[in-house]
Amino acid sequence: MQLKREGIPYIISAPSGTGKSTVCKILLERLANLKISISHTTRAPRPTEAHGKDYYFVSEEEFKKKIEANAFLEWAKVHNEYYGTTRHSIEKIQNDGYDVIIEIDVQGAQTLRSMSFEGVYIFLLPPSLKELKNRLTKRSTETVEKIEQRMKVAKKEIAEYKNYFYVVTNFEVEDTVYKLSSIMQAEKQKMFRYVPTSPDLESIINPQDT
Amino acid sequence: MQLKREGIPYIISAPSGTGKSTVCKILLERLANLKISISHTTRAPRPTEAHGKDYYFVSEEEFKKKIEANAFLEWAKVHNEYYGTTRHSIEKIQNDGYDVIIEIDVQGAQTLRSMSFEGVYIFLLPPSLKELKNRLTKRSTETVEKIEQRMKVAKKEIAEYKNYFYVVTNFEVEDTVYKLSSIMQAEKQKMFRYVPTSPDLESIINPQDT
Repeated sequence: MQLKREGIPYIISAPSGTGKSTVCKILLERLANLKISISHTTRAPRPTEAHGKDYYFVSEEEFKKKIEANAFLEWAKVHNEYYGTTRHSIEKIQNDGYDVIIEIDVQGAQTLRSMSFEGVYIFLLPPSLKELKNRLTKRSTETVEKIEQRMKVAKKEIAEYKNYFYVVTNFEVEDTVYKLSSIMQAEKQKMFRYVPTSPDLESIINPQDT
Repeated sequence: MQLKREGIPYIISAPSGTGKSTVCKILLERLANLKISISHTTRAPRPTEAHGKDYYFVSEEEFKKKIEANAFLEWAKVHNEYYGTTRHSIEKIQNDGYDVIIEIDVQGAQTLRSMSFEGVYIFLLPPSLKELKNRLTKRSTETVEKIEQRMKVAKKEIAEYKNYFYVVTNFEVEDTVYKLSSIMQAEKQKMFRYVPTSPDLESIINPQDT
């Protein structure tokens, strides 16, 4: 009688430097029922990155074949490299009953939205632009020009926050992890996801089935 | 620039015996920003009950005056006694910036809904009818007939769960408190409740205001 629950997709976007990856990493460590979708890319792996863990690293030829086969939910070319999320990578996780984080930029989320991809759209924000610039400056070895470029992109992205269902300001990692965990728990309690927990309740809730 | 947030109303219903009061009591002890709306009633206080804490105990005459003055968001006559929630009791809490629990039966919640009262509608369920009957039998000194009557009402109420936004099964108190706290935190993160946390973000989000 009890149906296997299909995993919930969480589409998480944030301006670069907000701390999205750190927060998602902790969530994945703590929540047993949560996985992250792994993107495909044509860019070279960094020394710490592993195929099938951080990305699926593929050749441009392989990537283009997948585009032609309509394998991608969304893809983009950024700085001459391809990045994309395959339908398969998400559906596999969902069908196994896991919730799935889709870390994706504002443009990618817009693509998912435009194809009515059902999921929980969450936007992470820095406490301020000043703090975002601090974080970008501290963490990176990038030039001042590059940081200015990132700030310009960030401002455009932030203006899109209204297209998300939830907004979380990343003041501090643990606080943000708590808020995101709360969102994930609350989503499980949504009425339309309720499944009767006993036959006697089932007979009231779905009388035609019994 | 930062606006004072108006408190969120949580309308919580549950069949009698589900454990709603226990769970709400713990939430009120733990969440500093949460209060409960206090109803008016014409019934006599029980030995453990205090005026202004459990209920406002009023005469039938006073109650009827309030009905005429349109003071009640909703009211009902049950077993010859009046029960009602005044607009003032909720608005006062909200305006002070507190979130507010409105413990109310299915019929009362339906009244609030029919007048488009904006809030977060949550339904608590027992794990099973069998378990509900156990709880009613254990806790009460009521007759078998009275318990059967409560079970009959419970079945009707449970069939209304679809009118609520969230559904939480009360398997165990701490688990339910966790789920309700999560819902309350998640609601605060809803996009439409986002308030910019710095002037530089404000200038992006509400450019016309600056």
